[in-house]
Amino acid sequence: MASIDSFKKYTVNKSTPIPLYFQFKNILIEMMKDEVLKPGDMIPTEFELCDIYGISRTTIRQALTELVNEGKFYRVKGRGTFVAQTKIEHDFTQKAESFNSEMLRNGYTPSTKVLDFKVVTATPEVASALNLAPNTDVIYLKRLRFVNNEPLKISQTYLPYSFCKHILDNNMNEESLYSILSSNINTKVYKVVKEMEAVVPTKEDCELLEINKTTAIQLFHAKGYNKFETPVEYTVSRFRGDKNLFSVEQFV
Amino acid sequence: MASIDSFKKYTVNKSTPIPLYFQFKNILIEMMKDEVLKPGDMIPTEFELCDIYGISRTTIRQALTELVNEGKFYRVKGRGTFVAQTKIEHDFTQKAESFNSEMLRNGYTPSTKVLDFKVVTATPEVASALNLAPNTDVIYLKRLRFVNNEPLKISQTYLPYSFCKHILDNNMNEESLYSILSSNINTKVYKVVKEMEAVVPTKEDCELLEINKTTAIQLFHAKGYNKFETPVEYTVSRFRGDKNLFSVEQFV
Repeated sequence: MASIDSFKKYTVNKSTPIPLYFQFKNILIEMMKDEVLKPGDMIPTEFELCDIYGISRTTIRQALTELVNEGKFYRVKGRGTFVAQTKIEHDFTQKAESFNSEMLRNGYTPSTKVLDFKVVTATPEVASALNLAPNTDVIYLKRLRFVNNEPLKISQTYLPYSFCKHILDNNMNEESLYSILSSNINTKVYKVVKEMEAVVPTKEDCELLEINKTTAIQLFHAKGYNKFETPVEYTVSRFRGDKNLFSVEQFV
Repeated sequence: MASIDSFKKYTVNKSTPIPLYFQFKNILIEMMKDEVLKPGDMIPTEFELCDIYGISRTTIRQALTELVNEGKFYRVKGRGTFVAQTKIEHDFTQKAESFNSEMLRNGYTPSTKVLDFKVVTATPEVASALNLAPNTDVIYLKRLRFVNNEPLKISQTYLPYSFCKHILDNNMNEESLYSILSSNINTKVYKVVKEMEAVVPTKEDCELLEINKTTAIQLFHAKGYNKFETPVEYTVSRFRGDKNLFSVEQFV
């Protein structure tokens, strides 16, 4: 928890026309940016905040209510107000990269738990996605991906067994699929086509991602192609809706 | 409902190694592509389908179960199996366009119901999105957008009052916002930056979009900029998750 003193370093200015609740709200946002306030931190009580800034309880409450509604803070009955986990932004205007490098670049600590890693017979959906004949063998890799020790998404990846069998020798808890695939021009992923949908969570989503039915899932179906336009990997990912944000740019 | 005869025009081939359930499944997908089967159509009973194709009920059932799981068909207890609405695909690799032109280009019939259209004071969130001073006047336009008479999304658009007031003279049930804005270089939208999240529906989402709590919402926060990089419009859209699909391409 941030100390009362750390709050006192940020001040409101009563001589500007900018509403006090808005100034106070921006102080809290500023403190999050400065990492003085971190996810999970409890903030002082409304009473203490009134005292620190010399503003009314109504004003404090208005700012906190907006911050709670925007998902930046959350309230726990009988305990207090806490800083929420900020959403991880995935920017589609950037190049596609592995989960680990994307998270490390954004200052997070990624980790992985392999849930399944074996050879299976392609379902028609998988065979069609990878342009394979029905019932061909594929490598199935199911992983739970974490950020700062919290589950973020479930990925189920399918790879054609014929030219990806060397993958099976790797420890996928530690190694990056994309970097293993990139060692060969035929399996190096050059382009990824992603389809996104919003869905409600399944029972398994709730268990693995540690959520309940009020958290939606951002579902992805992604196909990775090599530079010869041959599909190399097909991945179904289920992201926690409350922890992830996806951005894109379009010209008119 | 499609006639039994229309099913008989599609045949399975018992002399290939392709599993019969997969052939039969592809027949149904083919019939949807050919528009012989349309959303809402009931298909013949499992018993009738066994008879038409000379294949076992287990085989028929396996194909139908997969099609139901993929969301292409749905079952109604005691009535039968029906063709589901296919998802409308929004392709981010294409240029941004107005809702009406995007839907018309894809063969759908769009329509609009204006729910609100007035001048309001910008909330801090809206003022910040449009780079306006707090409490500036903005035009607020809330619309329910339909495709083939079914509600597809709720849009809430905010426009700076100072240079968009001429908008208020238009009938937004009929006219395209983007085409009105494009008449002036300062309001013509040149680039749109979109942030996407998956959320569970609110009570209002359920009422307006005619869904229940098991349908997720694809939430968008979009900012439209003119070619001088000034924000011109800020739109919050809430899409039905079960009717919309968004696609994007990324290079590695």
